[in-house]
Amino acid sequence: MSDTMKIMQFAGVERMELITVPVPEPGPGQVLVKVKAVATCPQWDMHIYYGKPMVDNQPPIPYPYTPGQPGHEMTGVIVRTGEGCSLPVGRTVSAWRDQGHHRYGCYAEYVVMDEVNVLPVPEDLPYAKVVSLELAMCVAASILRLRNTVGIRGKKCGVNGLGPAGLIAVQMMLAEGASEVVGIDPNAERRELAVSLGASAAFEPDDESLALRGEPGCLQVAIDCAGFPQAVASLMDRTDEAVVLFAVKKADYILRHYTLTVIGYPGHSREAAEYALRLIEEQKLDMSPLNSRELPFERYEEAVRLLRSQEAIKICFVPELGE
Amino acid sequence: MSDTMKIMQFAGVERMELITVPVPEPGPGQVLVKVKAVATCPQWDMHIYYGKPMVDNQPPIPYPYTPGQPGHEMTGVIVRTGEGCSLPVGRTVSAWRDQGHHRYGCYAEYVVMDEVNVLPVPEDLPYAKVVSLELAMCVAASILRLRNTVGIRGKKCGVNGLGPAGLIAVQMMLAEGASEVVGIDPNAERRELAVSLGASAAFEPDDESLALRGEPGCLQVAIDCAGFPQAVASLMDRTDEAVVLFAVKKADYILRHYTLTVIGYPGHSREAAEYALRLIEEQKLDMSPLNSRELPFERYEEAVRLLRSQEAIKICFVPELGE
Repeated sequence: MSDTMKIMQFAGVERMELITVPVPEPGPGQVLVKVKAVATCPQWDMHIYYGKPMVDNQPPIPYPYTPGQPGHEMTGVIVRTGEGCSLPVGRTVSAWRDQGHHRYGCYAEYVVMDEVNVLPVPEDLPYAKVVSLELAMCVAASILRLRNTVGIRGKKCGVNGLGPAGLIAVQMMLAEGASEVVGIDPNAERRELAVSLGASAAFEPDDESLALRGEPGCLQVAIDCAGFPQAVASLMDRTDEAVVLFAVKKADYILRHYTLTVIGYPGHSREAAEYALRLIEEQKLDMSPLNSRELPFERYEEAVRLLRSQEAIKICFVPELGE
Repeated sequence: MSDTMKIMQFAGVERMELITVPVPEPGPGQVLVKVKAVATCPQWDMHIYYGKPMVDNQPPIPYPYTPGQPGHEMTGVIVRTGEGCSLPVGRTVSAWRDQGHHRYGCYAEYVVMDEVNVLPVPEDLPYAKVVSLELAMCVAASILRLRNTVGIRGKKCGVNGLGPAGLIAVQMMLAEGASEVVGIDPNAERRELAVSLGASAAFEPDDESLALRGEPGCLQVAIDCAGFPQAVASLMDRTDEAVVLFAVKKADYILRHYTLTVIGYPGHSREAAEYALRLIEEQKLDMSPLNSRELPFERYEEAVRLLRSQEAIKICFVPELGE
């Protein structure tokens, strides 16, 4: 094993470079993971790559950005362990929690993870099924909150926005016994994908087939994975009981319906990660259709263009495919 | 028993009259109740009396208004029963559900109630403790929704608006095991009353003692019984986990916090009424401090003035005190 590794770094707007740094050492409670695959988090990647703010009042992005960032959806194999770790060398793991943006990220050949931020995963699963455990955990946190508050079983559910999170939400709602799940997205390919993953139907936003709340056939509960105030307002107008806010909020929402419950984001949890992993193992959650391509780090710019044009849902980087 | 009875009627704006009509006959599934006490529903009474809209886009109030309306918080004794009733003559009951505004209301000596809209209550309780069962049911519906979703036990709770509903909410949250309940109202007397009913403290809106969400000591869950957008915004800014919307919404709300859950009104239910009655019987809910005065119908105008000036919280009309 070499003493140095390749790691990606945003040098400036639309400038991604692959630099060489020493392989870091795991400290106490940390493991060094050889990265097998690391997936894009599309909104976040485009935000850093293009230098555009993702939410209101965001400070400017500092370039050069922390190496390896914003990669955080990662699966790999433990190659070294720090003091006090219980996971052994050789164990396949996936990151379930983003470690924050002030330390080396996962867009690298190796990454130091706090042991508490990874979960062991079956080693025989294709990368594309487990690389995005962190995203599945994020969605699961909202789904569990919905299940444990107003409930999902037997209900007509809606998913607004059929990007990576929405396509995970469709599957989780079905796993929780939704009577049916209806997808909403302007992109026809994504609507088709949602249906292939089990949605009973998928519509464009404001399609007339989507009944207004109070009308027969309206949604009972729904999750918003879009985040645009207009899309959220439209979803609230079409949902009877509860709307879950998952997508990062881009501006304030207007609450017009006195009898509607709006479920805020409950925060990340290991419990949600373990729940998501269980669904993956039980084959109730398949994330492989979300990873449209496997590319080496060298082709990052191409990857971001595919995300921007919505030709790809996510891109999975596989360091071993590189030079 | 006379064939005629006195019943109040709004003849026009600020014109309440006491008219004489035949005592109505209960139909199948209905009971005729001799009204022992009937309480004001302050916002609703003031709305009809002064002819001011209570919510946006409300059609004008039609005068003369339906006799006996808007009286709906009532306790009395069954004096006649229609076909197929199971409650006997002589049983003391309280209305738990408003029968709507298109039939004779309870501001009368007698009222016909659908049997399904009353619950038997202990006959030895003072009127002031059971007359407002309907209001307690309304509040209970929200409290039960809060308890069954994010929970109340062990939490620091807030109550915004210490009118009748707020003072009931304070007691219900304590009955549900809140670690403490903090009241919020501009009226000092009502704040004192909340504390005498078990609130740990009560503040004016925007008092500096009310920590912002995210700060230590902020509210964990809260219920809004005020309904003004500014008051709701202020409450949302000070509550970490969930805000329950109880007060009738006077305009749209702005949702600024992505992690906050907003619990909409779940609708009336007999289950909530039975819950409220149980709390009354167990002496965990005392509504007698809410009924500031007992007056005859003849003094209705005085009653509304006392409500408007906030000298009274509710007024309990006792027909037998009349001429």
